[in-house]
Amino acid sequence: MIFASDNWAGAHPNIAAGLSAHASGYDPAYGDGALDRMVAERFNEIFEREVAVFFVGTGTAANSLSLALYNRPGGISFCHREAHILEDECGAPEHFTGGSRLHAVDGALGRMTPETLEKAIGRFVPEFVHAGRPMAVSITQATEVGTIYSLDAIETISAIAKRHGLPLHMDGARFANALVALDATPAEMTWKRGVDIVSFGGTKNGCWCAEAVVLFDTGRARDFSFIRKRAAQLFSKSRFIAAQFDAYFRDGLWLETARHANEMTRRLATRVEASSRVRVAWEPQANELFAIMSKDLAERLTAAGAVFHLWNTPHGYAGAIGGDETICRFVTSFATTAEEIDRFSELIA
Amino acid sequence: MIFASDNWAGAHPNIAAGLSAHASGYDPAYGDGALDRMVAERFNEIFEREVAVFFVGTGTAANSLSLALYNRPGGISFCHREAHILEDECGAPEHFTGGSRLHAVDGALGRMTPETLEKAIGRFVPEFVHAGRPMAVSITQATEVGTIYSLDAIETISAIAKRHGLPLHMDGARFANALVALDATPAEMTWKRGVDIVSFGGTKNGCWCAEAVVLFDTGRARDFSFIRKRAAQLFSKSRFIAAQFDAYFRDGLWLETARHANEMTRRLATRVEASSRVRVAWEPQANELFAIMSKDLAERLTAAGAVFHLWNTPHGYAGAIGGDETICRFVTSFATTAEEIDRFSELIA
Amino acid sequence: MIFASDNWAGAHPNIAAGLSAHASGYDPAYGDGALDRMVAERFNEIFEREVAVFFVGTGTAANSLSLALYNRPGGISFCHREAHILEDECGAPEHFTGGSRLHAVDGALGRMTPETLEKAIGRFVPEFVHAGRPMAVSITQATEVGTIYSLDAIETISAIAKRHGLPLHMDGARFANALVALDATPAEMTWKRGVDIVSFGGTKNGCWCAEAVVLFDTGRARDFSFIRKRAAQLFSKSRFIAAQFDAYFRDGLWLETARHANEMTRRLATRVEASSRVRVAWEPQANELFAIMSKDLAERLTAAGAVFHLWNTPHGYAGAIGGDETICRFVTSFATTAEEIDRFSELIA
Amino acid sequence: MIFASDNWAGAHPNIAAGLSAHASGYDPAYGDGALDRMVAERFNEIFEREVAVFFVGTGTAANSLSLALYNRPGGISFCHREAHILEDECGAPEHFTGGSRLHAVDGALGRMTPETLEKAIGRFVPEFVHAGRPMAVSITQATEVGTIYSLDAIETISAIAKRHGLPLHMDGARFANALVALDATPAEMTWKRGVDIVSFGGTKNGCWCAEAVVLFDTGRARDFSFIRKRAAQLFSKSRFIAAQFDAYFRDGLWLETARHANEMTRRLATRVEASSRVRVAWEPQANELFAIMSKDLAERLTAAGAVFHLWNTPHGYAGAIGGDETICRFVTSFATTAEEIDRFSELIA
Repeated sequence: MIFASDNWAGAHPNIAAGLSAHASGYDPAYGDGALDRMVAERFNEIFEREVAVFFVGTGTAANSLSLALYNRPGGISFCHREAHILEDECGAPEHFTGGSRLHAVDGALGRMTPETLEKAIGRFVPEFVHAGRPMAVSITQATEVGTIYSLDAIETISAIAKRHGLPLHMDGARFANALVALDATPAEMTWKRGVDIVSFGGTKNGCWCAEAVVLFDTGRARDFSFIRKRAAQLFSKSRFIAAQFDAYFRDGLWLETARHANEMTRRLATRVEASSRVRVAWEPQANELFAIMSKDLAERLTAAGAVFHLWNTPHGYAGAIGGDETICRFVTSFATTAEEIDRFSELIA
Repeated sequence: MIFASDNWAGAHPNIAAGLSAHASGYDPAYGDGALDRMVAERFNEIFEREVAVFFVGTGTAANSLSLALYNRPGGISFCHREAHILEDECGAPEHFTGGSRLHAVDGALGRMTPETLEKAIGRFVPEFVHAGRPMAVSITQATEVGTIYSLDAIETISAIAKRHGLPLHMDGARFANALVALDATPAEMTWKRGVDIVSFGGTKNGCWCAEAVVLFDTGRARDFSFIRKRAAQLFSKSRFIAAQFDAYFRDGLWLETARHANEMTRRLATRVEASSRVRVAWEPQANELFAIMSKDLAERLTAAGAVFHLWNTPHGYAGAIGGDETICRFVTSFATTAEEIDRFSELIA
Repeated sequence: MIFASDNWAGAHPNIAAGLSAHASGYDPAYGDGALDRMVAERFNEIFEREVAVFFVGTGTAANSLSLALYNRPGGISFCHREAHILEDECGAPEHFTGGSRLHAVDGALGRMTPETLEKAIGRFVPEFVHAGRPMAVSITQATEVGTIYSLDAIETISAIAKRHGLPLHMDGARFANALVALDATPAEMTWKRGVDIVSFGGTKNGCWCAEAVVLFDTGRARDFSFIRKRAAQLFSKSRFIAAQFDAYFRDGLWLETARHANEMTRRLATRVEASSRVRVAWEPQANELFAIMSKDLAERLTAAGAVFHLWNTPHGYAGAIGGDETICRFVTSFATTAEEIDRFSELIA
Repeated sequence: MIFASDNWAGAHPNIAAGLSAHASGYDPAYGDGALDRMVAERFNEIFEREVAVFFVGTGTAANSLSLALYNRPGGISFCHREAHILEDECGAPEHFTGGSRLHAVDGALGRMTPETLEKAIGRFVPEFVHAGRPMAVSITQATEVGTIYSLDAIETISAIAKRHGLPLHMDGARFANALVALDATPAEMTWKRGVDIVSFGGTKNGCWCAEAVVLFDTGRARDFSFIRKRAAQLFSKSRFIAAQFDAYFRDGLWLETARHANEMTRRLATRVEASSRVRVAWEPQANELFAIMSKDLAERLTAAGAVFHLWNTPHGYAGAIGGDETICRFVTSFATTAEEIDRFSELIA
């Protein structure tokens, strides 16, 4: 009953096996090997166009370097108030950009709205150097609270970004979970809707450590290669990431693990809805469920072996939470079993 | 006959197996898992004292963040003119320290001498802000040209550093190769000789991706934890590095792979010495051989399937190199076989 | 009728004369001259203790370098939501600290409250690296909206900062205006109440360009000297700042100019209160008056030659502002004349 | 007999008077005043084309921000081994560029040669990310050792820079001294010979504090305005710099002061040549004389009231210096009098 995070799981057996299968033999280092190139080609297929793909080691790296690519002095990046880049990366985006700033944009359930984004960008008058200037917009898909942006919402946001001359970054730490939830193609969820650069996460969805920056404006690839190296994110035995992605994409494993994780969350939501002691805080759309229960129950569940995090009430949450209640986050992954859910269900029945 | 670099090899079978063995099950993320703690304890044993150990993804990260820990405004770090941090990291050490500077110190065969180091540090007058101020000394063990610092040499250098109030960093991308060459213990090669912080490399010696910063002044550990996270080097599924180190240290695997690599270099050196067409440029001490041959021969060997790098003549090289000759670098690893060497020997016989 | 800002004025005649008086003759550069030392000694007298004083060229430099002195990886500095460092310095504090972050703290009328500050700091759990960690608290005295922190309020805030192990910075761009308003000594308003470092502004109060960082922990002075030089703020002909401060302090000029500026604001407030068409938005305490009037009137006043800025309604403003109304900021300085005020009064009568 | 540096002098009487003349009255802050605009227009006239001019407070700022404008990740800027940016700015250029590197280029008498520059740039292979990549070339005019680049030499160097796609920066801390020595126009010495950006110094030539960045690619001006503000170099009472430049340019004062300073150096050189106890180390071309004398004599001259700096022997100096001899630097300025020289002459006669 481990619902703490999707990164508490290890690696999917296929990922582990794929990695082992590439352990022997020599290959050029630093991303110049045959497997690296093959996997890069695979990204082109998946995105239905030529992309520039750069492996990195962490989601924080993918996000920070994406912003670094579009860095400008005095720059301000707009993201949701609860975005990972703002709340959970220890200032890495600011550090890698020499001090650019992240601007918190409001919006219920983890999503900026066109109105809040427009208003936030609109505060900055182009020639007024004192306040700095807009530099990028970043959305998280799926969001930190388990919701997703619809394709239309992405398009609306990218239109705002474009109107202000800003690139649109997508933090896709849970890219696959959002993708299967939308039943969309990677192309539809990104560049066809105006996304310029993606932090493409594999780690949370069954890899050990496989993250990539996918860049649609390939003219910027050369700059990115220096940004990555300078950021200590160019791995010598790069094939260890390539091998993971190779297994990840093979036979649609990545979509399958994401579907499974999402399904486990839905299963859990159903059980929660059936319980009189716990209620769903908001509709889960990917692989995270937020539920409200008494603090007392949360403690007892923990004592009974369930692992999950208490969560702060999101800004703008419209629901009611009692004084003795708390929001709890439950995350499922490729490794979650129906049996785990069922055992948990019994505890809350 | 792949002698291009020790990072062209994949992972040692034990490493690959050890990693797979830990693929299933849940574990807390971000370094708080049981395996992480166990491996941290293992580092204490290996260094015969309490150390603070931080896993990172690349040697560049280990080096850059080590310097970042001792960062000071206007800082100057002293390293050999051909050090990896100076020549091969795209300015990462400068980047992660907000613009501190690396100062090239001369010395034959990849090693600073007490004289050149003293002179370099001595140029900086404490109160003269214009020139900046000394901040750290960094040595590479084994060096970029396959030589090693003796224990006495390390002690002499650390004494100079201490006299100037500077910490001593050791870039140990090839730590194990130097260690077995010296037949010393990790403690003897580091803190017992005044080293303050070590980039402890596992990747080149048989791991996929396993680097660590080993810090002897544990009072600085808390700072380092923020430095690492901000640098995007805190891995969520941290156990994937822990599992590699676990296998790496088990039954002395790491010393065995290093001994093998060094032995292969010695075997290669013996064959080169026996050849009338190639000569050893300087005595190899770890797992890298530098040999001199005609450019023509280098081309023919390459055509015959041998992979190695042409190398610039190091600063201060005292030997003679003909106009039509070149220095070539040959690196061996855990994966190098005697058969590869023998095949190559036939080509140069 | 120029009420745009106190930096629209030039230099007080005594400042201009003082500067000219030191134009001839030779003096060591970079702050080592006799006048530099004499003025540094003057700062000791003014603050009734030994301080380390560093001249810089702008308030932005004073603020940014003050924070840089206390910089820590992953650092978060707490300041009011409308603080100059957050709203008007183009990210300079973040830039000079390699990407530390400013955290907006709420509070009516430009002042953090003990409660909002405690709550803001309390969000950060010491060992949770993901969120970063507290690094400093910064207050603005006088604030951006013309109010001041009482001595008790400063003490309360510094107690909170100390309890969390944080230094307290005071942005004193309008230090003198606050000082005379409180009828306090510099010592009382700063280190006696727990302030650790001050951006001591002279420019807005009659100098051309004279700002200083005043540091009470003189053990950090050496570090600051490198921080300043690296930040391009060490002036070669440093005496041009020293000469301004020399004249500034002579015969209490600085207190006199500040008193005059504050008095002009009070005179303006009285006239506004007497007008039926304009009203005081909140009680002015230093040299800035915020008044509410119809947008139409604001336009007509502008057309009639009055220069002032329309201002955003501050966060948490409790007063009522009509849909066709606007808040306007009026700043007075040493150069403001009673005649200017009177002319303006006629326009609003 | 103060020959320590041209920044030991104060301000030329005309500069001081010009500044005082603008002390009264109101003017928009932050560079938007009438005088700012008038002086900007004056720069256009002086350079015979539209330029973007930005006032800053120090030469270090001008140099660092010029490089920051052309900053690129992994960037390497090429400058002479003894350039001010490399030797005397405490790492400011690296700091303001987030860790770009300065690469020392050899050359006798303070000047890079086409050969040494070509060779230095040529070391960097475009696609090899490990080593970083060229970003800019910077020359100092006049150089740190009182020599100047001829117009042809500038053109040759700019041709090399252009061939490698690099901008050419000129550190003109002693711009006027070089200009009058060459009897060239500002246009001829800069953009007509391929210079892209100039640190235009006024401080050493009679101003208090007046430096400017002159940018020929005006399309980059907007970026620079944010770079300057973020660097804390946008002065609120900007007119205090404008007023200095206004007086500086009026009636050719700047050329006159530079001519005087150069002439004083020539006068001093003549006296040195006439002395049997001191000799000219190399031909002075601007306002700095380097002379060789016994250490003993240097001490006695100092004791007699002459102020000058002992200097390190420059790299590649071909002349002979005895073991008991030293090179001494003598700098003259607008303030140097023939009488000072003559008094000094008597001491060495």
